[in-house]
Amino acid sequence: MTASRQLHLGAFMRPVSIHTGAWRHPDAVPDANFNFPLLRRLAQRLEAACFDAFFMADHLGVLNLPPQALKRSHTVTSFEPFTLLSALAGATERIGLVATASTSFEEPFHVARRFASLDHLSGGRAGWNIVTTANPDSALNFGYEEQPDHAARYRRAREFYDVVTGLWDSFADDAFIRDAGEGIYVDPDRMHVLDHRGEHFRVRGPLNIARPVQGWPVIVQAGSSEPGRQLAAETAEVVFAAEATLESGRRFYADVKGRMPALGRDPDGLKILPAAFVVVGDSVEDAREKRRRLDALVHYDSGIHSLSGMLGHDVSGYDPDGPLPPIPDTNASKSGRERMVTLARDENLSIRQLAARAGSYGGLAFVGTAETIADEMERWLTEPACDGFNLMFPHIPGGLEEFVDRVIPELQRRGLFRRRYEGTTLREHLGLPRPGNRFFPASGPDGTGTGAV
Amino acid sequence: MTASRQLHLGAFMRPVSIHTGAWRHPDAVPDANFNFPLLRRLAQRLEAACFDAFFMADHLGVLNLPPQALKRSHTVTSFEPFTLLSALAGATERIGLVATASTSFEEPFHVARRFASLDHLSGGRAGWNIVTTANPDSALNFGYEEQPDHAARYRRAREFYDVVTGLWDSFADDAFIRDAGEGIYVDPDRMHVLDHRGEHFRVRGPLNIARPVQGWPVIVQAGSSEPGRQLAAETAEVVFAAEATLESGRRFYADVKGRMPALGRDPDGLKILPAAFVVVGDSVEDAREKRRRLDALVHYDSGIHSLSGMLGHDVSGYDPDGPLPPIPDTNASKSGRERMVTLARDENLSIRQLAARAGSYGGLAFVGTAETIADEMERWLTEPACDGFNLMFPHIPGGLEEFVDRVIPELQRRGLFRRRYEGTTLREHLGLPRPGNRFFPASGPDGTGTGAV
Repeated sequence: MTASRQLHLGAFMRPVSIHTGAWRHPDAVPDANFNFPLLRRLAQRLEAACFDAFFMADHLGVLNLPPQALKRSHTVTSFEPFTLLSALAGATERIGLVATASTSFEEPFHVARRFASLDHLSGGRAGWNIVTTANPDSALNFGYEEQPDHAARYRRAREFYDVVTGLWDSFADDAFIRDAGEGIYVDPDRMHVLDHRGEHFRVRGPLNIARPVQGWPVIVQAGSSEPGRQLAAETAEVVFAAEATLESGRRFYADVKGRMPALGRDPDGLKILPAAFVVVGDSVEDAREKRRRLDALVHYDSGIHSLSGMLGHDVSGYDPDGPLPPIPDTNASKSGRERMVTLARDENLSIRQLAARAGSYGGLAFVGTAETIADEMERWLTEPACDGFNLMFPHIPGGLEEFVDRVIPELQRRGLFRRRYEGTTLREHLGLPRPGNRFFPASGPDGTGTGAV
Repeated sequence: MTASRQLHLGAFMRPVSIHTGAWRHPDAVPDANFNFPLLRRLAQRLEAACFDAFFMADHLGVLNLPPQALKRSHTVTSFEPFTLLSALAGATERIGLVATASTSFEEPFHVARRFASLDHLSGGRAGWNIVTTANPDSALNFGYEEQPDHAARYRRAREFYDVVTGLWDSFADDAFIRDAGEGIYVDPDRMHVLDHRGEHFRVRGPLNIARPVQGWPVIVQAGSSEPGRQLAAETAEVVFAAEATLESGRRFYADVKGRMPALGRDPDGLKILPAAFVVVGDSVEDAREKRRRLDALVHYDSGIHSLSGMLGHDVSGYDPDGPLPPIPDTNASKSGRERMVTLARDENLSIRQLAARAGSYGGLAFVGTAETIADEMERWLTEPACDGFNLMFPHIPGGLEEFVDRVIPELQRRGLFRRRYEGTTLREHLGLPRPGNRFFPASGPDGTGTGAV
């Protein structure tokens, strides 16, 4: 099967379950999201199953939920991504480690340095999920009374990316000589001073760490808006997509990959991994029953808040057992709103039933046996609608273990997933090339290495 | 010996040697400063020897050395402190992990969060070495054309400390309930919104992580200026002192501890650990010869730059084999300048010889056998001029291993150092109390926990 395409699998591990009721499951470890020994064991399980990456989302604050919803959130205390992933780097050998870092309230020098350090500590396993922060409560933790608008956040993000990647290229790969006899540690001619001066940042450089093992850590994005898709086509190497159906997945895949040739990029240099919630059972009905039991653990106070958020309209005042009334147009994400309105209409759900769905997971879900889940994944891959998935597990650890123990072997049997790692870096797992150094292009032995872009 | 005072020992491990020629030693690993498997092994060695802490200094840039000095620096590529210490947290069980973090170019929310995360990951072993950044080259990496002056940096540092410690107190220690049956994860009444609005920062909070295991990570400082001593007496729990002689050490110790009662602090709540460079030999003359051989590895280009820096005056243009001419008064640190001028006069050294000393280590050094070094350490402890030391090793790994294998057993034999850890946290190693939560003072079961300071 080496000639065929194989799936790439990420594990979405912060939070350990996106499902707001998962921590209440009878087999769950309630503090799984904040339990380092457990997370270390799970990372080792995922590595034994040959996952491409362990992925951490992030928030720069406690979300400003009303107390009735906040008190039920298992994510209110969480590890900071760089510290957790570095600790896991010391306890694993191969699995990729993807940290979310926002461009909105950080300095590019710090971000470039931490990713380079994580990449060196892990032997080339770091990835950077670039996000902008839209949450106004996070802004208040960094002295901003108002959140910058969407376009301003994207302009800053683009410049931030340019600075970070420029800093990663501060040293040629062969800059460090370490000739003890002559007393020469580094060749200053193989060091570049960036001296960036842009709209948002002035950063002199160089970075005080060698070029990352991977050249650059893998660049990951999740934006699905029009500017998000364009930025992904220009810069991303992995996209965590959020398409909920095979048909919309196929369209998204064709759209983003279709933009790349005109930008001078090989579409194979970008892997599209939709988020998928997975529930494994002995039969399809068993899996569905598992999900029903899990969804029943969503407290109404959590679910109604999630539903109001998705609709962009507070529906907590309506009769929980009545139907969803017409919802006015708002600024909320149209896709989430339409999904909920359609679901209520098609399945004739009460507000209470709809709230349970909203507090569960409303996006793509594979609920079935190892065989039916493998069938669905194979269909997405061959359509093509994806290059793999970023998987969300239900309760922890059981939901993760069931997937690893039952679905992974089925995917391997079909030749759709690796049985062992062939490379050592995250780039090698994903089949991505190592980027050249813009300031020190690969050259013959007499290359001067000063060809700045 | 449990009634007597014992030494507390830190290991100064970034850089792994302060000595600019150490990486050239025939037994040294030249890339020791940037070699994670080696650093992990050394951390485990230090832990087996019951050291209180592994300590990382830091720089926020490549130091702006002239190319002739820069090319010889083994510290030009280094790990970032939080990523390295987190990776070490996963590979050790007891040793404290002290990270330097500057208040000059960071956001207090990020710093509070990373230290809290490191403290949780390590089971209560984090310490924060608070510094302000005086290096103008670092400022250029963060958009500052000019470095803020000393007083402004200290005002910002003080407010930064207030915000960070306030954020650490965001949750009462008993805030997390995790009642799966009732679906209650956290008690919102046991969460405090800081809402800080000061001269430098506006930070709403709360921090999105539980209160650190230690309450607060241990607060470490190194300032020896008048405002530095006062800030230490007010806030520090460990001071890394730089006194070079027993007499000046005794004066510093008495001065800083003497300020504490008037501030309402118990002098035992602050541990003073002078930096000390240690060279162990079979005889005193053997140790001195080891140091001479090591100092001979300081390249003139490095040494003359170090010397010019300490003098605050460029002496690279003078005859290397002539005497030191009179040096004009400058803004450089007076203590370093006077030490060099005195050394040149007292030992009748040429500029070349003085440069070798400057590129070596000009401060307190214990050079001798295990017995003579233990004698000297005991004298400092009983004077009292210290509560222990922050040790700098010569070449790595040999210089560290010689200290651990030879001096530690001698200190243990005398009852001056622990044979095993009695506690699990850095606070417990140091004999420091766990700070109370300013917003949720310890109270009876009916305490409301809203007694904000």
